[in-house]
Amino acid sequence: MSGKNIVVAGATGAVGIEILKVLEKRKFPVNNIRLLASKRSLGNKLTFRGEEIKVEELTKDSFKGMDIALFSAGGSRSLEYAPISAKNNCVVVDNSSAFRMDEKVPLVIPEINPEDIKNHQGIIANPNCSTIILLMGIYPIYQLTPIDRIIVSTYQAASGAGAQAMQELIDQSEAYLHHKTIEKNIFPHQIAFNLFSHNTPIDENGYNTEEIKMVKEVRKILHNPDIKVTATCVRVPVLRAHSESVSLELQNRLGLNQIREAINQFSGARVVDDREKNYFPMPIEASGLDDVLVGRIRYDECFNNGLAMFIAGDQLLKGAALNAVQIAEKLL
Amino acid sequence: MSGKNIVVAGATGAVGIEILKVLEKRKFPVNNIRLLASKRSLGNKLTFRGEEIKVEELTKDSFKGMDIALFSAGGSRSLEYAPISAKNNCVVVDNSSAFRMDEKVPLVIPEINPEDIKNHQGIIANPNCSTIILLMGIYPIYQLTPIDRIIVSTYQAASGAGAQAMQELIDQSEAYLHHKTIEKNIFPHQIAFNLFSHNTPIDENGYNTEEIKMVKEVRKILHNPDIKVTATCVRVPVLRAHSESVSLELQNRLGLNQIREAINQFSGARVVDDREKNYFPMPIEASGLDDVLVGRIRYDECFNNGLAMFIAGDQLLKGAALNAVQIAEKLL
Repeated sequence: MSGKNIVVAGATGAVGIEILKVLEKRKFPVNNIRLLASKRSLGNKLTFRGEEIKVEELTKDSFKGMDIALFSAGGSRSLEYAPISAKNNCVVVDNSSAFRMDEKVPLVIPEINPEDIKNHQGIIANPNCSTIILLMGIYPIYQLTPIDRIIVSTYQAASGAGAQAMQELIDQSEAYLHHKTIEKNIFPHQIAFNLFSHNTPIDENGYNTEEIKMVKEVRKILHNPDIKVTATCVRVPVLRAHSESVSLELQNRLGLNQIREAINQFSGARVVDDREKNYFPMPIEASGLDDVLVGRIRYDECFNNGLAMFIAGDQLLKGAALNAVQIAEKLL
Repeated sequence: MSGKNIVVAGATGAVGIEILKVLEKRKFPVNNIRLLASKRSLGNKLTFRGEEIKVEELTKDSFKGMDIALFSAGGSRSLEYAPISAKNNCVVVDNSSAFRMDEKVPLVIPEINPEDIKNHQGIIANPNCSTIILLMGIYPIYQLTPIDRIIVSTYQAASGAGAQAMQELIDQSEAYLHHKTIEKNIFPHQIAFNLFSHNTPIDENGYNTEEIKMVKEVRKILHNPDIKVTATCVRVPVLRAHSESVSLELQNRLGLNQIREAINQFSGARVVDDREKNYFPMPIEASGLDDVLVGRIRYDECFNNGLAMFIAGDQLLKGAALNAVQIAEKLL
């Protein structure tokens, strides 16, 4: 396979750095790679396949002669530069929310709806991290029976707000332990030894943007506008993996072993569900893993065909960088 | 009002220490007070109303001439000594789970079912902390319309496992930040910068003991064996207040302002629900408060008459010590 010319926009961010690692680990056929960031990061160097590469500024001229651009530089930069990249025949895989609900843009989890990729018009959107982690856990079940209702409460790591937010959790924890002043720069509330409702704007219906993303993206990815979804998104003092407590109402009753088998056979998910040892998915164990972990699988006694579960997945990997690179692989 | 002779069993524990503070703060009419603990704590002294009091050993002779015993010394000690206390006409308010589901023992939240107290036969049970915090948030709504379904996911603080568990969270956080070995003595899994399914045994239906307590205790307190309840209980790296993400299916649709007003008018609960400022209940703000905080109040789009909310309450106060002392006040 001939190598591709790859752009990574937002290369110095938490997701950008993971994208480089994932490209390398998965032996993605890279010919040239261009690492782009905002002016602040110019002059920085990043290592890819043992080679030091200078970070360049993201401009409208960044895409000429390039094949695939992996964007993770924030919504406003995606809105400005992704169309320019597409016009240069450099296909965009965009990590931001800018184009996710655009009808002309496929929203893809490669294990779930890879066939949507072929309809792209130059931009493919990577779903929200919480959406990906949720769907990786429940899609094996959805393949066995329709799901009527999804009720999810999240336990989201600092990484979802970027590298500086992870550092803020560390700095605040250190300050708290040593009775020093806790400084808030990234999050609006103290994150160390605390938790708070996801700090995105609240819609008139009372849901925040993160929750609305989950609802709408689940429907788009499943091509199922009728599925009932409710989410409560909460930020917790964990560094980089998201967890989710999920209740489902299924149309048909399934066996629990059948469900466990389906999850284990589904590429990208793995059952961690040892009741005797009280050993279930935990963010420290999901961190650094490609697989999403699924456990606490039990009948949910609130519904006739109810099912409850607890899911944990690396927000930076399957929740962002890995999923983006997997989409790029499908473009090869 | 003449003073009562009070026993505090488990006086040196996290809850016991709060009981002393609450008795003092609420000017509970105490004549004599006897502070009891296991042999390990003998010789310790605790301060009550400015006076140093020696900790004595809990024995079967501890209750003669005493009026009310506040137990928070673990289930096995409650099972052994609470009946002895009751025989000595010293009414027990028991914080453990030992007697909660006993038909002869009232299970009481004084704001909700105070009338149950009068049926006691010497022992009154204090509900599980997560149950109290949940019901304090939703009972004002239940007074307006029956609730068919309660779906709750918890974010439980280390305090629920006692003072040593709180110290373990601090010690592990310190060790993590300074790249030292993380020691696990109280919790089976790392708690610092992590979270895990509540570490109580799992029943054959897949629910853990904490979750089953919530289901059964909600039904008993509300005298409503038919209400559908499902809980997922999770331990998070927070020190002392529990949070809960709740979805309800109501029998009738209520106005959101009507609900907010009902919560604010309910003694012991308070609305914290500023959508514009993204300001909702947080455990650091619930810590040290008597009131349970309720926010994120919105229609839950998963149900016809759905309602979602987020609740935070001090596990050691309303979740334990305060509720116990309030029960004792009703005995006066």
